[in-house]
Amino acid sequence: MKLIEGGVTAAQGFSASGIHCGIRRNTSKNDLSLIVSSTPASAAAVYTTNLVKGAPLTVTKAHIADGKAQAIICNSGNANTCNADGIEIAEGMAALVAEKTAVNASDVVVASTGVIGQPLSLDPIRNGMDELVGKLSESGSRDAALGIMTTDTVPKEVAVEFTLGGKTCRIGGIAKGSGMIHPNMATMLVFITTDCAIAPDLLQKALSGDIQNTFNMISIDGDTSTNDMVVVLANGLAGNAEINAEGEDFTAFMQALNTVTVGLCRMIAGDGEGATKLLECQVSGAKTLDTAKTVAKSVICSSLLKAAMFGADANWGRVLCAIGYSGADVDVNKIDVSFRSNKGTITVCENGAGIAFSEEKAKEILLEKEIEILVALNDGEYDSTAWGCDLTYDYVKINGDYRT
Amino acid sequence: MKLIEGGVTAAQGFSASGIHCGIRRNTSKNDLSLIVSSTPASAAAVYTTNLVKGAPLTVTKAHIADGKAQAIICNSGNANTCNADGIEIAEGMAALVAEKTAVNASDVVVASTGVIGQPLSLDPIRNGMDELVGKLSESGSRDAALGIMTTDTVPKEVAVEFTLGGKTCRIGGIAKGSGMIHPNMATMLVFITTDCAIAPDLLQKALSGDIQNTFNMISIDGDTSTNDMVVVLANGLAGNAEINAEGEDFTAFMQALNTVTVGLCRMIAGDGEGATKLLECQVSGAKTLDTAKTVAKSVICSSLLKAAMFGADANWGRVLCAIGYSGADVDVNKIDVSFRSNKGTITVCENGAGIAFSEEKAKEILLEKEIEILVALNDGEYDSTAWGCDLTYDYVKINGDYRT
Repeated sequence: MKLIEGGVTAAQGFSASGIHCGIRRNTSKNDLSLIVSSTPASAAAVYTTNLVKGAPLTVTKAHIADGKAQAIICNSGNANTCNADGIEIAEGMAALVAEKTAVNASDVVVASTGVIGQPLSLDPIRNGMDELVGKLSESGSRDAALGIMTTDTVPKEVAVEFTLGGKTCRIGGIAKGSGMIHPNMATMLVFITTDCAIAPDLLQKALSGDIQNTFNMISIDGDTSTNDMVVVLANGLAGNAEINAEGEDFTAFMQALNTVTVGLCRMIAGDGEGATKLLECQVSGAKTLDTAKTVAKSVICSSLLKAAMFGADANWGRVLCAIGYSGADVDVNKIDVSFRSNKGTITVCENGAGIAFSEEKAKEILLEKEIEILVALNDGEYDSTAWGCDLTYDYVKINGDYRT
Repeated sequence: MKLIEGGVTAAQGFSASGIHCGIRRNTSKNDLSLIVSSTPASAAAVYTTNLVKGAPLTVTKAHIADGKAQAIICNSGNANTCNADGIEIAEGMAALVAEKTAVNASDVVVASTGVIGQPLSLDPIRNGMDELVGKLSESGSRDAALGIMTTDTVPKEVAVEFTLGGKTCRIGGIAKGSGMIHPNMATMLVFITTDCAIAPDLLQKALSGDIQNTFNMISIDGDTSTNDMVVVLANGLAGNAEINAEGEDFTAFMQALNTVTVGLCRMIAGDGEGATKLLECQVSGAKTLDTAKTVAKSVICSSLLKAAMFGADANWGRVLCAIGYSGADVDVNKIDVSFRSNKGTITVCENGAGIAFSEEKAKEILLEKEIEILVALNDGEYDSTAWGCDLTYDYVKINGDYRT
């Protein structure tokens, strides 16, 4: 397996585009994206568990109920959530794609992200459709990645190439993250494409399994969005023997998928609203997998620790505090904590108590852009990793007046 | 019942003091407080549920196991948590009180607040004891309230007077809040005194019941501290017939206690780290009490909503989002949301969807210092209130480098 360029259009048969159609007032920002497969594809998706669900999710669920889809349309700038006409608008978006392409409306995945509770007009989308479809290109991933961004500062694309039974397969994806990121069962917006042949139920199994250890292990701010979804389309153009059971090929597919999703997770966490640092909490030696995950996520969610990381302050007491209130079954007196970055590793707590360490060295390590928080529970054999970011002035600034 | 001055020394027979003894480097801040009852008192307490617990909590639990206590010593600047010699130091603090007063060491409640994982020396406390005891005064509540503060910006005192069987009783308390405030079963540091005669088991019952609707309904930052505790001492000097069963007197006591605790809750929330606003979320019409509480707390904990309130932005979608991910059993399509302050009330969402409203009026309402977020679930008869504060640049600043 190797990393390749191309994001969501790396796989054969996928084209994409992104434009500014006028949903956003800022004309320099794309606000509408389209991804199309040249042939119908197996489709799988996971969605937010928030009881308040964006209308596009309801429409998407219905459209991929048959395990098939062929296109994804997504706008930013408006979440189309808590609107009385939401379903109608989301269906309207799918119909517009069907009108201008060879794709059936019922094979269109619809997604929206942005402000909740403001009516979304179809007009700018209708007016932009010719340009959007006209720009579809096998190198259009970047434009599409730009079109789904809200407060993201960088587009997020990852792709890998791997082989199945001698056939070269590709999986690539794009994502938007930034704020209201604390996925639960599903997550933010992530669109993944592959030319691998895989049956819809196995594709769903791969996706549902993967997100437990990837997107569901990110938190930017503890807020679970109303519009989160991850969608995978697999069009089979790689020509591999279709994966329709677990086994070697399924495992290879899962590994490739995981490389893409972990890459996107790190990009989403590192580009959290206002973030200056990517935080990765690696928990080892837990009694159960649940314990490992609960501890990792509690640490990554602590506002106090996040603020300390912004200040490059080795305040490990906040790591222990977050473990202590996580609800996980741990023996506090066995816990070791270290911080690691490109500048080295420093252990700051052993057996649940502080040890002497160089504040100077700790500061040097914590001033880096990617920080690993290593928590050894020394109590079992399970590991887990969670991703997050620091809490900064800019998070407050961005969210103090998001709507205007 | 009426509000009176005097805080933790409002009740008969209680004296208090606070000094700077040298635990903190900043000599202008008190760092050691003492509260003493002239006679042994009924005692009740609740503690943090964090698995990482400060050593003072262990010592306090043992000392009030018999339902009696007579003094409270508390230092700020150091939490005496995650220290190998923590218990020994906490017992040492109790012994120092016993040495200089008529109180037995085993009747001393010990509390500490501040940085976790740094050794606490008994030396400054020992050196300060003569001054601390010498300053004990029946008007010493304010000094004691100052001595338990960490990043609090104002001391927090409340007291009330009420009558039981013709006898005048008083309950008063002091608190420290600010950061790492998301109590669970117990909370921050709160010391309450009363001259009411009440049996220890009834006192514990009153306290344990009250905190479910008061301190456990506050969140500043979602972090549950390692050192939270609420302690009540009741010395009986009011001369009322001892409350030793539920009934009219117990109810009157509960009401007076609740007035003190709600007062302290509002002070703690409004003075959260970096806060510019007190937020109060009032949920009505819930199917169950649990639902009401879950919704209220989820709204008050949302980083996104907190940041919006800082910016006086009526971003009600974040209220609905926080309700949706709370896990509470609600019908989204029945929810109404309004914002209220001294400047009036504005409804922004009805039946789960946005309605037209004046952004100008909303801004005027939200620019006030105390904001009520009214959530009508229209689905039952249970209500709940939670308290919090906005998320500001200063929260990040304070916590970016708390230790130095």
